Amino acid sequence: MITLKDIEKAHDRIRPFIHRTPILTNSSLNELSGAELFFKCENFQKAGSFKIRGATNAVQLLSEEDLKKGIATTSSGNHGAALSMAVTRRGGKTHVVMPHNTPKIKVENVKRNGGEIVWCETSQESREGVLEDLVKKNGSEVIHPYNDERIIAGQGTCAKELIEDCPDLDIIVSPVSGGGLIGGTLIMANEIEEKIEVYGAEPSEADDAFRSLVAGKIIPNKTINTICDGLRAQIGALNFPILKEFVSEIITITEEEVIDAMRMVWERMKLIVEPSCSITLAAVLKRKAKFSNKRIGLILSGGNVDLNRLPWSST
Amino acid sequence: MITLKDIEKAHDRIRPFIHRTPILTNSSLNELSGAELFFKCENFQKAGSFKIRGATNAVQLLSEEDLKKGIATTSSGNHGAALSMAVTRRGGKTHVVMPHNTPKIKVENVKRNGGEIVWCETSQESREGVLEDLVKKNGSEVIHPYNDERIIAGQGTCAKELIEDCPDLDIIVSPVSGGGLIGGTLIMANEIEEKIEVYGAEPSEADDAFRSLVAGKIIPNKTINTICDGLRAQIGALNFPILKEFVSEIITITEEEVIDAMRMVWERMKLIVEPSCSITLAAVLKRKAKFSNKRIGLILSGGNVDLNRLPWSST
Repeated sequence: MITLKDIEKAHDRIRPFIHRTPILTNSSLNELSGAELFFKCENFQKAGSFKIRGATNAVQLLSEEDLKKGIATTSSGNHGAALSMAVTRRGGKTHVVMPHNTPKIKVENVKRNGGEIVWCETSQESREGVLEDLVKKNGSEVIHPYNDERIIAGQGTCAKELIEDCPDLDIIVSPVSGGGLIGGTLIMANEIEEKIEVYGAEPSEADDAFRSLVAGKIIPNKTINTICDGLRAQIGALNFPILKEFVSEIITITEEEVIDAMRMVWERMKLIVEPSCSITLAAVLKRKAKFSNKRIGLILSGGNVDLNRLPWSST
Repeated sequence: MITLKDIEKAHDRIRPFIHRTPILTNSSLNELSGAELFFKCENFQKAGSFKIRGATNAVQLLSEEDLKKGIATTSSGNHGAALSMAVTRRGGKTHVVMPHNTPKIKVENVKRNGGEIVWCETSQESREGVLEDLVKKNGSEVIHPYNDERIIAGQGTCAKELIEDCPDLDIIVSPVSGGGLIGGTLIMANEIEEKIEVYGAEPSEADDAFRSLVAGKIIPNKTINTICDGLRAQIGALNFPILKEFVSEIITITEEEVIDAMRMVWERMKLIVEPSCSITLAAVLKRKAKFSNKRIGLILSGGNVDLNRLPWSST
């Protein structure tokens, strides 16, 4: 089991290679939510998302020998770009298994950072199957996007900075996909002295974590028909027990709520964020009564959006 | 003539009512430009642009008696919203003369901040004519968007913060419209001990300042057919002499260059900025040889963009 100590060590390890991203506030969104909101801007992070944290932690831990084998992963985009950046920095090669429907900007990001793309279908089985074949063929080292303790510890550094820079938080809201970010956040928030409640925000259209918690065991996604292209993965075997033990609630969010919240962040905060992270604001607004008068940290996990394909009409 | 002292006093006067906006950097844009770029994020400012600085300075200087008369102005949008905010805070009423083709978000901003809109045509004559009629009818106090010493001193506080927070700048690039922002910037940059060169960035499609400097006297705009809706005004009588004395160069920028730079700021910095301020980056990229290896401050003047009308195609 990962501990606070692992997150602290990960932070020391990755600090030279990442941004300490700013935390922004917005008075009109405070007013609207009736709470005090603190947005941790990982959309400003290296390679455009928090994923560089876990990826850098994992890559810095590789031996030269491991690195020579080449690195492989599966990714909805942001992990692939981040991993490629971290591996290229150490002089290695990365293969990234990505679904055909990945936004173009995320495909370009992988390439720009030196990664090589291997296409797969959108289903979880195709993702994992193509990765398995690749590893068999090349003998590569796998750095999984979330089902990996090095990744979970690395992602926990985001909540660590948020808590350090923003005292007396009551709540943190994190997006939920495979469980890397929320996993690290949960460990961080529950091992510090003044515990902080952590809520997950998950698309109704890819609500495997929500349903898995209800069932008490991992249940696959029924659909992944969501605009949140970063939240289509299946909760991981290492991640699920952390959620089960620590998470306060998974709040499921409709597509319309995600898009409304995204537009609010764009228009009022002047920040470009992905639907996959505007979902945290949607969750706060959906549970307004519960969250009112609280000090809430929201992780704006990334900003890699295809500007030619926005979810509102052009007139 | 306005002095550094006026800007310092304005800053003390407005400090409680404005944000000290952050300065962001971006390694990929540094690489592209061959310079070190420091972006002053006035898109995060109250009411969405730097205009709140001058407006607040002017409004705080009004007597109760002046305030009772009502305040009137002409605006391409951002000044109107900022002025309305500052006047409403003091309990007064604002009339804003605005052209019919003002982006919807700017119209809404004026209304949301308590201003009342009076429509005019897009030409400079119509703007000033409708304002004149309004003042005759109502006896209102006019706070002009740029041709006003209180405004110029207020706008100068933006460069003041940039210089304080970002030492050893060689150059500042400011957008040019009526000359409020660049006027205050020029005074600031030329009255401090270590002088800083100031360049203006102006649309080729509304290049009155450029042509006025060549002619040595104010010459009206030939066209204002530019996407930079904040840069369609005519250089002011009070502003022109400041430019004439201090500005290093006005760099004129095509529409395509403005849009390319806007997209770069959106995609790489994850910031929503108006075309009227992405023009500063376009200027730096256009004069790459001249600006290389310099430390350059760029004023990102505002972020009020109509998200339904973006200057790139949706696919």
